Amino acid sequence: MTKQDDLVIAEGFKLAMRRLATTVSIVTTGQSGRWAGMAATAVVPICAEPPTMMVAVNQSASSHTAIREGEYFCINLLATRHRELVSVFGGKVAADLRFAHGQWIEGTGGVPVLADSLASLTCAHSRAVSFGTHTLFFGEVVDIANHADIDPLLWMDGGVATGIRTEIV
Amino acid sequence: MTKQDDLVIAEGFKLAMRRLATTVSIVTTGQSGRWAGMAATAVVPICAEPPTMMVAVNQSASSHTAIREGEYFCINLLATRHRELVSVFGGKVAADLRFAHGQWIEGTGGVPVLADSLASLTCAHSRAVSFGTHTLFFGEVVDIANHADIDPLLWMDGGVATGIRTEIV
Repeated sequence: MTKQDDLVIAEGFKLAMRRLATTVSIVTTGQSGRWAGMAATAVVPICAEPPTMMVAVNQSASSHTAIREGEYFCINLLATRHRELVSVFGGKVAADLRFAHGQWIEGTGGVPVLADSLASLTCAHSRAVSFGTHTLFFGEVVDIANHADIDPLLWMDGGVATGIRTEIV
Repeated sequence: MTKQDDLVIAEGFKLAMRRLATTVSIVTTGQSGRWAGMAATAVVPICAEPPTMMVAVNQSASSHTAIREGEYFCINLLATRHRELVSVFGGKVAADLRFAHGQWIEGTGGVPVLADSLASLTCAHSRAVSFGTHTLFFGEVVDIANHADIDPLLWMDGGVATGIRTEIV
């Protein structure tokens, strides 16, 4: 089997990534009065001991510098009720006006925590690794807030999906 | 706000991760006659130029050594029709018997590719980083096969979810 050429790969990669359904998060950082945050889908747990999360952030994103320089960041998993926050934190609203949308409280280190998130994981920023166009930020979880229902807001095929329910088998 | 103690974090982390809905993949590697593969949910795109995928694998997983030593690995995103493969590649079936389930063909470098996956991304293994209990494997995408419908199989709250549809807004 011959390898595909770069253009075919680039186009195929975009299409494949539309197929990868992920829970939408808002990654936040900063301290009182200087909060920053952005919608993110490339969020994964990478270790349970110690509990560690990773998020890949495009270096051209408005919040990239703030996350890189912050001592803490918070990964807020979104629920169906946060649907309007996707476009707000996805770039439709200027960086300094985003936190007027949603209920935000101050967490460990002063980072903004979404009060009614599906789950909010405040992380002590432990490592940053550049990788091409992106930076991978690693953080050890130091505070967690989980909220009632499991009703995640997904991103797939360029839009949102809701109403996800685990099947009883 | 005071930080939570380790036990609270460990327990909260498990609960939070049940809330993070992800598309199930089967990560495969190996060459003809010596295939290895495992179900994985910690799969993310980390860069588009060059197209690069990352997967976090527990060092105790039966396929860990094969992936670490392989020149290529393939990330096969699962669709609803692959539901039975989750338990097969999740540990219920011995490593050497797994490929009797599902339709597997040989891809670039001899790695097993799921013929009717949602998308299969064959990656040239470019980097491995140890992180606590896990290893992060990075691979540059060298071959992609995307298939018709976008009907991902999700993992959430300890079970599968299907029938996900993007909403038109």
